[in-house]
Amino acid sequence: MSSSKKLVELFYDVVSPYTWLAFEVLCRYRNVWNIELKFKPAYLGGVMHVSGNRPPGVVPNKFLYMTTDLTRLSDYFDVPLSPPANPFEAMFEKGSLNAMRFVTAVAEKEGDVEVERVSRELWKRIWSTDQDITQPASLTEAGLKAGLSASQVEEFLTLAKSQPVKDKLKSVTDEALKHKAFGFPLIVCHVNGKPEVFWGSDRFELMAHCIGEKWVGPQPGKPTAKM
Amino acid sequence: MSSSKKLVELFYDVVSPYTWLAFEVLCRYRNVWNIELKFKPAYLGGVMHVSGNRPPGVVPNKFLYMTTDLTRLSDYFDVPLSPPANPFEAMFEKGSLNAMRFVTAVAEKEGDVEVERVSRELWKRIWSTDQDITQPASLTEAGLKAGLSASQVEEFLTLAKSQPVKDKLKSVTDEALKHKAFGFPLIVCHVNGKPEVFWGSDRFELMAHCIGEKWVGPQPGKPTAKM
Repeated sequence: MSSSKKLVELFYDVVSPYTWLAFEVLCRYRNVWNIELKFKPAYLGGVMHVSGNRPPGVVPNKFLYMTTDLTRLSDYFDVPLSPPANPFEAMFEKGSLNAMRFVTAVAEKEGDVEVERVSRELWKRIWSTDQDITQPASLTEAGLKAGLSASQVEEFLTLAKSQPVKDKLKSVTDEALKHKAFGFPLIVCHVNGKPEVFWGSDRFELMAHCIGEKWVGPQPGKPTAKM
Repeated sequence: MSSSKKLVELFYDVVSPYTWLAFEVLCRYRNVWNIELKFKPAYLGGVMHVSGNRPPGVVPNKFLYMTTDLTRLSDYFDVPLSPPANPFEAMFEKGSLNAMRFVTAVAEKEGDVEVERVSRELWKRIWSTDQDITQPASLTEAGLKAGLSASQVEEFLTLAKSQPVKDKLKSVTDEALKHKAFGFPLIVCHVNGKPEVFWGSDRFELMAHCIGEKWVGPQPGKPTAKM
């Protein structure tokens, strides 16, 4: 890491569709802005519980709006978001604890490339193709699609059930809570030794201003970029 | 109104700081985009109640974040936001019913210029100088600062207590609820005969894309514009 690069931490959970947008935008801007992007897989359920927050979708009008909002953003951000048939079941009944333990196991043993690919495959399952992310077979499929070998997947599935990985996921979640998290994405930019915390996938223009960079829309450098 | 101009309706209540940001941005872009901006003074308390939404500030971490977020946005948007010493008292205990009835009275008798000025003076009181907006003396002060005469202010104070004005405020609030409002600002863009609804002060880039215009940051045309 060059000393001039600003560290940007992304606390995330694949259960959150807005976080997928932020994840893809930061993966794109990693090569545009002078930043080091650090993935921090965490557990949104824990953050919601400890902070006393409740999902926005419990207000019917807000749920309706979010559906429209996500459809528009999916197009504008060029991220293939498509809500599962039963979002409440997918997000709250089934949840993401196993999936995020699996991502944590990958993060413990592999590098950013693998973490990025596995996370994206899991997001695709829950938020694009409406597939399960709780069962070992589902995690295996995501892992293989992400380019892991069968033996690696097996190793990470075992590791995901181990106490150190459970503890690790909890400690990263606690780290997010120390930054006063109440939801994801939580993006922490380290500027002049101070953490600047941003929540959501709609503060990139402000964030760019804060870290001395330029926001040119969600698809930088692409001919399809809208700005 | 030129037939090519797109109608953009802003449903607002001066009790909401994020709505002030949206109000100022739309007042600026009114001269940049090919739109007709229509002010729709409404009552946020009614929207929150009917939609079953609750204020974001009730989650302590979210309240903390909003304070930081508003400070940053105030600077970036160049809107002199400064939270009152006791936001809960100002927003929920004292509230904005009298203020929005007063604005409604102004809207019934005067044009957009007066509505804009009076709304801005009320926002300045609650969200910049920490002053009351519930008492007749407070509304008078705001009205005079906005350029109304003493006799106009008196007329609007009386009118604000009349049934037709109370009904009007309720009907505009109901109109917002028909657009499935759950909070303000609610911005309704009429595009090809279809209402496109946006919530918040952080969807302008997306909104511009939707109405075929260009977003160049919250301070268009100013040398201080950050983009």
